[in-house]
Amino acid sequence: METIGYAAFSASSDLKPYHFKRRVLRDNDVAIEILYSGICHSDLHTVKGDWGQQPYPLVPGHEIIGQVISVGKNVQKYKVGDKVAVGCMVDSCQCCDQCKQGEEQYCRNGLTLTYGAPDRITGEITQGGYAKHIVVREEFVLKVPSQLDLSRAAPILCAGITTFSPLKKWNVKKGTKVGVIGFGGLGHMAVKLAVAMEAEVTVITRSNSKQDVAKKLGAKDVLVTADMDAMEKSVAKFDLIIDTIPVKHDLNVYLPLLDIDGTLVIVGQLGAMDELNTSPLIMGRRRIAGSLIGGIKETQEVLDFCAKHNIYPECKLITPQEINDSYHHLEKGDVAYRFVIDMSKMSI
Amino acid sequence: METIGYAAFSASSDLKPYHFKRRVLRDNDVAIEILYSGICHSDLHTVKGDWGQQPYPLVPGHEIIGQVISVGKNVQKYKVGDKVAVGCMVDSCQCCDQCKQGEEQYCRNGLTLTYGAPDRITGEITQGGYAKHIVVREEFVLKVPSQLDLSRAAPILCAGITTFSPLKKWNVKKGTKVGVIGFGGLGHMAVKLAVAMEAEVTVITRSNSKQDVAKKLGAKDVLVTADMDAMEKSVAKFDLIIDTIPVKHDLNVYLPLLDIDGTLVIVGQLGAMDELNTSPLIMGRRRIAGSLIGGIKETQEVLDFCAKHNIYPECKLITPQEINDSYHHLEKGDVAYRFVIDMSKMSI
Repeated sequence: METIGYAAFSASSDLKPYHFKRRVLRDNDVAIEILYSGICHSDLHTVKGDWGQQPYPLVPGHEIIGQVISVGKNVQKYKVGDKVAVGCMVDSCQCCDQCKQGEEQYCRNGLTLTYGAPDRITGEITQGGYAKHIVVREEFVLKVPSQLDLSRAAPILCAGITTFSPLKKWNVKKGTKVGVIGFGGLGHMAVKLAVAMEAEVTVITRSNSKQDVAKKLGAKDVLVTADMDAMEKSVAKFDLIIDTIPVKHDLNVYLPLLDIDGTLVIVGQLGAMDELNTSPLIMGRRRIAGSLIGGIKETQEVLDFCAKHNIYPECKLITPQEINDSYHHLEKGDVAYRFVIDMSKMSI
Repeated sequence: METIGYAAFSASSDLKPYHFKRRVLRDNDVAIEILYSGICHSDLHTVKGDWGQQPYPLVPGHEIIGQVISVGKNVQKYKVGDKVAVGCMVDSCQCCDQCKQGEEQYCRNGLTLTYGAPDRITGEITQGGYAKHIVVREEFVLKVPSQLDLSRAAPILCAGITTFSPLKKWNVKKGTKVGVIGFGGLGHMAVKLAVAMEAEVTVITRSNSKQDVAKKLGAKDVLVTADMDAMEKSVAKFDLIIDTIPVKHDLNVYLPLLDIDGTLVIVGQLGAMDELNTSPLIMGRRRIAGSLIGGIKETQEVLDFCAKHNIYPECKLITPQEINDSYHHLEKGDVAYRFVIDMSKMSI
């Protein structure tokens, strides 16, 4: 299938329109017309080569909302016209212990990322959601609950699941004291989701300017790291801290804020962290963990959870022509919402 | 009570004999004649000022085996002649959530260390086990099971409990794959204890020379970090890694060895670690944790466990006059046993 998207052609150049082919439908494939595609900070990291060399031209995008336009002959779950979604993965081995327990993101044989990864059958490089169409095997296609507004749902597929998964895994419930570091695409979703789980949520931030927005989203408190008095009073306060900062930063300032047996989960930043002082870990049996997106079953769960609780990412709709501009905003940091590309504004 | 011990008089000088007074027995106090006192690497760190300035003269030692010579009028559990032990703590608030659940090491109001800490009542600085006598409140005195050889039991009070506690907390059982980094005082106890829990234990070491000793202690395997082939094959192998290295080191080499959801627990080193690569954490929901000794209940449990399974630290008995020599050995590192001072060789 012929389609058109926006691709990076090198680590340093702007994204440009790109005509390319999606694969011929396999028996278990679903062909999707993409309606909305979120822009994730990791798209920027990837196309800039921050996480290793990339196979250009590369179409980023792994927060995809669309509708089914055709299905392979063995597809059971979807039919033409269904509203569907695709997230960060499009395939995995489906037979290892992790896949079997719905943790495809940790597939022992390696997950297949939505873009920039070799297809498991042909070796062709996958291309992502900044495009008019995509073809994905049934098992990696999600149902969009009917009550969800399609134009605002895309970021649930990465920003949503990436924060939902650790909140669930670390058993956040009524009264759990949750801190959220970084208040951008992931951070603001972490706040909304944790608030819906009835946690007591605090936004931990460098600047005082987030106060109103954080409270509006349901945060009980805002802790400004420069306020030494407030930081001192917050020692051992949190059961769980979700760290969504997507660039290198210093963990040492946050660790004492964890309660005994508390965990700081890094979801935003792959790569080196500053030198680590282990004393707060030892002195309170505190933990640092990482967490990668979430499994397919859990991704369906977060879509359903958002529908049930009327939770939406804060989205700013843009046209495909505005992608490069949005990247410049992301590079400057501290965007308290998600750019979502309205793919209807791109003609084939 | 007049007594004599070995004290550090500054961060740089050798330890020397020191005459000092133990406090007059309080109603809930037990007076103990010390028979054996283990030498812990943290004694060295402390007296050298690595962990902050110390109140000299300071008598180190928190692995104490002795016998009761008198008791306060309200003491219930002990009588004159009982064989008893004292570990790293001699007091805590006894009323916070942590104390109430037997985790006095994380006392919200601050534990009182066996040496170098202000007494909760008088503010006097506590003095440790390199001495003929000690006075400790009943709640922080342990029973030594009758079948334990007193001359070899002292290191259970720190090296033993410090490794036993995370093995228990992280639920080590038959078949759990446990890696042990650092094969000194703590590391060799971690191996013995995990083996007794029927775990599959691997010693992870820089040098090939540990092979025989490790196997003799029950380790199934030895993984030499310089063997890149073996390291590659050991990726995602371990459920739990106990890191006992007592000096600054690099965690990045070990993190990929953890299985998905696996944890590396730091018990040996307080202070800065090298820059951390977070990718292995995120890519496998791996965790880094710290753990501090263990609670009083758990310390009794490890004494009983060692008695039941006939587990002893590898001890080398020395006289008080040999303390400074033993420190020089420790500074060189890689001592696969514990120095234990025979206090009968010191006369008052």
